[in-house]
Amino acid sequence: MNDKYTVETCFSPALFPYRMTTDNYVVVIVDILRATTSINAAFENGVEAIIPVAEVETARQWKQKGVLVASEREGVTLDFADFGNSAFNFMNPAVKGQTIAYSTTNGTQAIEMAVSNGAEAVIGSFNNLAALIKWIKQQQKNVLILCSGFKNKFCIEDAFFAGALAANLLEDNENYSSHCDSVTVAVDMWNQGKENMLKYIEKAAHRERLRERKQDDVLEYSFTLNNVSAVPFYDKASGKLFNATLNK
Amino acid sequence: MNDKYTVETCFSPALFPYRMTTDNYVVVIVDILRATTSINAAFENGVEAIIPVAEVETARQWKQKGVLVASEREGVTLDFADFGNSAFNFMNPAVKGQTIAYSTTNGTQAIEMAVSNGAEAVIGSFNNLAALIKWIKQQQKNVLILCSGFKNKFCIEDAFFAGALAANLLEDNENYSSHCDSVTVAVDMWNQGKENMLKYIEKAAHRERLRERKQDDVLEYSFTLNNVSAVPFYDKASGKLFNATLNK
Repeated sequence: MNDKYTVETCFSPALFPYRMTTDNYVVVIVDILRATTSINAAFENGVEAIIPVAEVETARQWKQKGVLVASEREGVTLDFADFGNSAFNFMNPAVKGQTIAYSTTNGTQAIEMAVSNGAEAVIGSFNNLAALIKWIKQQQKNVLILCSGFKNKFCIEDAFFAGALAANLLEDNENYSSHCDSVTVAVDMWNQGKENMLKYIEKAAHRERLRERKQDDVLEYSFTLNNVSAVPFYDKASGKLFNATLNK
Repeated sequence: MNDKYTVETCFSPALFPYRMTTDNYVVVIVDILRATTSINAAFENGVEAIIPVAEVETARQWKQKGVLVASEREGVTLDFADFGNSAFNFMNPAVKGQTIAYSTTNGTQAIEMAVSNGAEAVIGSFNNLAALIKWIKQQQKNVLILCSGFKNKFCIEDAFFAGALAANLLEDNENYSSHCDSVTVAVDMWNQGKENMLKYIEKAAHRERLRERKQDDVLEYSFTLNNVSAVPFYDKASGKLFNATLNK
């Protein structure tokens, strides 16, 4: 019983300091709309590395050094950036082999929060779910699923993904167990919505924000399972995300 | 549309700083297992006032002044206290007309957090749900349901109550609306579990902790609807909780 790896979920970066999991763990960073979905799309389209950047000024400096930059705030691509943060921006032959500085406040803070506490961090979205599960099981570690939320508030789409990942890991009940109420509810959400993901997500507040910005064309891609084989892994030495599955 | 009062839920005190609701609002403090359930039981049994106290030392000082004290840590009644914090402790004729200093770290912090931000705070549990709804509708204010959680983590029983309260308010859709994903999921939880509340709560982690401490005799009471008519309201001037329905 105690030999099993634990699965825990934090519904917001603001809850990460109160997690139960504190050793031998990997953190899965989740921001379905849209950062982690876009990062996975970028790697699937041949991006070599992504530099997560919190501040707009830092993104601007990377641009001045000649690095491609993807950056937006409140849904608007910044004037100096090469791309916004829609997954569609990265479905472009020009990104192949490139390093891209990617400015996303929430996602980057979540990564920094995780790695500064000694954990390893990987990127999760529905697109790379199967690849992620396979990679996680190879690690033989406890798992903490860190939802980015929306401005630190709970959001449905990230919790829904946490449920999908947790449900799959906990099916392997010889190796994984959970004593976390967030996991229990997230798995219930997944079971409630998995047969028709886009319908389930209709009720999410962020889905409404995307509709208002006319950016909801990305929804179908964001809730497509397993069309990405990459598992972006944060390399502490370089401060860059690389595809972990390339080294296997 | 914009004239409606909003309903929002925070799943943990740690998420309160990120709430959307910031003016003309009442905060409903929720700690089903066991603080808010016990406070409601105390008022139903004729307690005059409750002094919420965060620190054990402060509780000891009240005791030295001759005030009755209810206090426990990690499920154990403190040696100087008159009562622990089970609802059953307050079903005692001796409490009638008394003022009780009640030491509960989470619940008290939640109250302080709410009122220091200018909001009014009331106590909610399944026991006073109908009375609470009636009182809230008289206030004509926005509503924020603040779940105490367990050590700042999300917990099922508090979110389940948030769903019960929000579902009832939102049925009055001429006056209340929500744009909060936490409310949406909490209402789903309530709809999933309301027909058999004790069965639904079987999966909560805290229910397991109570079983281990042999304190799960309080569960049936904690999930009984509408056997309390009191609505404990925090009076900022005195720092005490009084029954708001007595003045109506």
